[in-house]
Amino acid sequence: MSAASELHITLAGTQRAVAATTTAGQALEADGRTVIAALVNGEPRDLAWELSDGDAVEPVAIDSEEGRAILRHSTAHVLAQAVQELFPEAKLGIGPPVDNGFYYDFDVAEPFTPADLKSIEKKMQQIIKQGQRFDRRAVSDDDARAELATEPYKLELIGLKGGAAEAAEGASAEVGAGELTIYDNIHSRTGELCWKDLCRGPHVPTTKAIPAFKLMRTAAAYWRGKETNPQLQRVYGTAWESKDKLKEYLAFLEEAEKRDHRKLGSELDLFSIPDEIGSGLAVFHPRGGIIRRVMEDYSRKRHEEGGYEFVYSPHATKSALFEKSGHLDWYADGMYPPMQLDGGQDYYLKPMNCPMHNLIFDARGRSYRELPLRMFEFGTVYRYEKSGVVHGLTRARGFTQDDAHIYCTKEQMADELDSLLTFVLDLLRDYGLEDFYLELSTKDPEKYIGDDANWQEATDTLRRAAEKQGLELVLDPGGAAFYGPKISVQAKDAIGRTWQMSTIQVDFNLPERFDLEYTAADGTRQRPVMIHRALFGSIERFFAVLLEHYAGAFPAWLAPVQAVGIPIADEHVPYLQEVAAKLRAEGIRVEVDASDDRMQKKIRNAQKQKVPFMLLAGDEDISKNAVSFRYRDGSQNNGVPVEEAVAEIVAAVRERRP
Amino acid sequence: MSAASELHITLAGTQRAVAATTTAGQALEADGRTVIAALVNGEPRDLAWELSDGDAVEPVAIDSEEGRAILRHSTAHVLAQAVQELFPEAKLGIGPPVDNGFYYDFDVAEPFTPADLKSIEKKMQQIIKQGQRFDRRAVSDDDARAELATEPYKLELIGLKGGAAEAAEGASAEVGAGELTIYDNIHSRTGELCWKDLCRGPHVPTTKAIPAFKLMRTAAAYWRGKETNPQLQRVYGTAWESKDKLKEYLAFLEEAEKRDHRKLGSELDLFSIPDEIGSGLAVFHPRGGIIRRVMEDYSRKRHEEGGYEFVYSPHATKSALFEKSGHLDWYADGMYPPMQLDGGQDYYLKPMNCPMHNLIFDARGRSYRELPLRMFEFGTVYRYEKSGVVHGLTRARGFTQDDAHIYCTKEQMADELDSLLTFVLDLLRDYGLEDFYLELSTKDPEKYIGDDANWQEATDTLRRAAEKQGLELVLDPGGAAFYGPKISVQAKDAIGRTWQMSTIQVDFNLPERFDLEYTAADGTRQRPVMIHRALFGSIERFFAVLLEHYAGAFPAWLAPVQAVGIPIADEHVPYLQEVAAKLRAEGIRVEVDASDDRMQKKIRNAQKQKVPFMLLAGDEDISKNAVSFRYRDGSQNNGVPVEEAVAEIVAAVRERRP
Repeated sequence: MSAASELHITLAGTQRAVAATTTAGQALEADGRTVIAALVNGEPRDLAWELSDGDAVEPVAIDSEEGRAILRHSTAHVLAQAVQELFPEAKLGIGPPVDNGFYYDFDVAEPFTPADLKSIEKKMQQIIKQGQRFDRRAVSDDDARAELATEPYKLELIGLKGGAAEAAEGASAEVGAGELTIYDNIHSRTGELCWKDLCRGPHVPTTKAIPAFKLMRTAAAYWRGKETNPQLQRVYGTAWESKDKLKEYLAFLEEAEKRDHRKLGSELDLFSIPDEIGSGLAVFHPRGGIIRRVMEDYSRKRHEEGGYEFVYSPHATKSALFEKSGHLDWYADGMYPPMQLDGGQDYYLKPMNCPMHNLIFDARGRSYRELPLRMFEFGTVYRYEKSGVVHGLTRARGFTQDDAHIYCTKEQMADELDSLLTFVLDLLRDYGLEDFYLELSTKDPEKYIGDDANWQEATDTLRRAAEKQGLELVLDPGGAAFYGPKISVQAKDAIGRTWQMSTIQVDFNLPERFDLEYTAADGTRQRPVMIHRALFGSIERFFAVLLEHYAGAFPAWLAPVQAVGIPIADEHVPYLQEVAAKLRAEGIRVEVDASDDRMQKKIRNAQKQKVPFMLLAGDEDISKNAVSFRYRDGSQNNGVPVEEAVAEIVAAVRERRP
Repeated sequence: MSAASELHITLAGTQRAVAATTTAGQALEADGRTVIAALVNGEPRDLAWELSDGDAVEPVAIDSEEGRAILRHSTAHVLAQAVQELFPEAKLGIGPPVDNGFYYDFDVAEPFTPADLKSIEKKMQQIIKQGQRFDRRAVSDDDARAELATEPYKLELIGLKGGAAEAAEGASAEVGAGELTIYDNIHSRTGELCWKDLCRGPHVPTTKAIPAFKLMRTAAAYWRGKETNPQLQRVYGTAWESKDKLKEYLAFLEEAEKRDHRKLGSELDLFSIPDEIGSGLAVFHPRGGIIRRVMEDYSRKRHEEGGYEFVYSPHATKSALFEKSGHLDWYADGMYPPMQLDGGQDYYLKPMNCPMHNLIFDARGRSYRELPLRMFEFGTVYRYEKSGVVHGLTRARGFTQDDAHIYCTKEQMADELDSLLTFVLDLLRDYGLEDFYLELSTKDPEKYIGDDANWQEATDTLRRAAEKQGLELVLDPGGAAFYGPKISVQAKDAIGRTWQMSTIQVDFNLPERFDLEYTAADGTRQRPVMIHRALFGSIERFFAVLLEHYAGAFPAWLAPVQAVGIPIADEHVPYLQEVAAKLRAEGIRVEVDASDDRMQKKIRNAQKQKVPFMLLAGDEDISKNAVSFRYRDGSQNNGVPVEEAVAEIVAAVRERRP
């Protein structure tokens, strides 16, 4: 057995000897799942990749996260090939996989029409049927330039090879730090070269390995995300390991669209983002204002019970404060531009509340007896998000944090983090979220301040606090900000989407910068530990998350109108007014629909407005001092005594029933 | 009886014949009060003014508002004379009477020292003793210029004669629109000219008529209030009709200083205005935060009961909104400078909430069924006050209005204004203000928009609403803003100072500018009436007013710490902790002082912190399950059963007892 004729490899953890010139695909053939690529020594590779002695090979299945990304990347190639066959003048931008799909950018004279998308999809189906092979080939920079001479954007990418390409949005799918590669698409029957693209790969073996895809929409996009660059046309698509999975995903999208908080916000008259005010700056209408006020009131009450102290700080400040805090060094891009007052003094809107809370801590000497000191504020902050990323209430330019900063001794940190995490999770549960996991972001060894022992201790303490909750704990190694480790609470909503909610962030930086101190029991001056904690994150965003979670059908305690009286005929209005008065006396938000509409229309209106409880009344109900009690789901109990109906509604609200 | 030897005049309303060459002073001699000047045909004149046939003469008593102003103006002359005698190089600025006193500005090389003020006061006493006569004399512009050649500021004022002088701060006391006059100070015994000043007068007859005065302080002041002009030294003084009145005023000042909200805010750790943030921008510390939160919570509750709907709006907006509202035309000076976003789009901080509320009104079609629509917001606004006028929380650059805008039909306006005024006054009374008058600002015929009939109707409606309250109603003719008439509620605090509180402003302008409409019962599109209403004005300012009104001793429901447990010795702490737990369960903010201080010190500390209730406990109290109940005024009831003490505190808070 000569070394030349045999390779010793590790296959999915097991030692194996295979013939020389074995490809990754051949080595993995025995795997039961649909394998579309391989990890060779941890690097994703084509199945056609030739193995070397000592390689470790793992399969990449089409239904794994990595497999889907490769599938989508290959589908993006097919998209580009189809576009260039139909629109030969189209120049190629980039075409990476993204969450749940892929896109490809094209420089074309006219935006694509919906009809264009249909033709492109048809052409893609043809390419897929042909089973074109994805063949990888290394090229020199000069050869690549010669081959892609008619693709100006690809030429630019070749120039960006390495670090710069990583920085360019999506470009790392095309060119990495190493050698350049081109993928040729080879016709399975004729062996003809059908198309090629500059690409790092890997790809599925042939286009036949693409089981299901769909083009979704087009949008304009600047080349490399810069407004001064040419505008390209981006085509978005999605691809899945099976037709069923694709169908499932499309159904999910439809459900998500129905729940879109911007759509519901307008339908239910909750909020708007008026053009006159500007992108990312919402106004809350009366009905949205009620929900928000109830959300805030309950949070305020719980914070009060939790030993928080309420502070208030302004929205603007001299630059001095953000110089002291360091925000102007490392966060200036996220801040609104300054306003000059008093002949030359720069004032900034605050992007965060913490520096102001530090001033309050530092307004007088502090004793260990006062710690932990928990400062809470509904603090509205302003952040200059790029106009392209602003999205409804979930990514806004102005929002209100339910922001707390906790100052404690090192000894108190463990207990404080424990009770903090419990507090946070309990409160999120009260608002109706149930499904959580925790993420622990730990030190980036390249970028941190403070001493290692403190990091270790804080990280261990956070970990222990997280583990006590009995929830799934996901590690995010190196993901911490430079100033300290963090736990974030990730919540799943009713349709399974994950939202980052609360964060609990230890901060070793600001207490130093503000020279915060307290007098310890032994009379020495000590630096407090500082913990940042936002529970909702932003009230506006949390409002949007709940709106989507409940699809607008808020539980009674949060609903803007909790009950509506619906008369069978006009003469039943006074009776329902009396019932409403009883409810109102118990603090219930109730209306009686005395409009000219007919009863069925009134019921439909109340259902459209997602009012939790409808109280119908006609002659028979009145004669029995009762109502017909109708629920949002359409079920109805007739002849419910008024006192009983009132009691049920009051209980549902008081107990915050879901 | 020839016409030349006799004048027919009206003396204090009665027809009289007096000898020719009779002066106003001679005609008024019979008056019992101390008369120091006269109104001749409504114009204030010296007593030495020679009457003409047909004149109507009224006395000006020294203890009237007008009399005090003349007295103070004359005292300002004596001050200037004394300064020029002691500092011959001093050049004169202006020296008008102001509220409660007067000032005079001097151009001197060095600021005056406290010792200088003493010497100046002494010199003034001498001048007063000499009984120098104030002699009025008309002069031509050229003669005035020649006589005052060494007084550059006076020469400048001569050039400003007429309209321009009215505009120059305080200068109208020196030169009016008519002829120039100089007042000579003539020594009563020697007849010598002691001093003179360019002045419109009138003055007291002689310096002996100045019964009591005091110099208060000095401050730098720019000539004519402009920062580019030379800096002068301003000396402030006060003068009164009697030594007792002066003493009373000084005592009042001392009391006001003790109550200064900036001083109390720091002593009681309620708020601060950190240098790092900037003038006029306060942070509320935990203890101030509690008071503010309780103030807000109660107001929120009352507004909810009052049928208000809660909205939220951002603090920044594109310029488009304030162009639409007109604020950038007529209010730009009061606004912060713009921030440029998105490559050239100006964004402004909002100085008022109304335009945003109009957008909410206009977000969808409105029906008459929805009116009156009452939108409420705790809206923080930012106004660019000149740094010189910013004062603590009462004149700030950022503050939170408890701002409501009411949209109603014309027919609803009367009822709405009625209930609004009752609502406002009730709520102010709940916070402990009791003494009010109302001010009605009516149309300035030179400057208004909207039609006369609407103005008349709105003004009459406001007047009737005001009269129903049975409070004093003061007219402010022509004092309304151009867009509508207004009622303001003026409240007197515990030491008699008047604060402008709530305003109720009818607005004919914004509904037009925003083209606001509702569908009336008959299907036509109608313009709603808009009423602006701020109740506290600004929460920060109202907080400051209450802080000064109560001198920090807030009623229990507002006090940051409502009760404190004070053990006679350490071993009594656990007992008091139990008592505290009972109070806490009832929502009472209670602390137990377990520090190392001795009991007497703890009582002093609690008194300094103005805690309403102290619960003392020693062995005897414990044996009887009682406490020694001590009040803020030092009174104490011993052996009060714990349940009784708890009940009393809970009742005081729940009932908002004063």
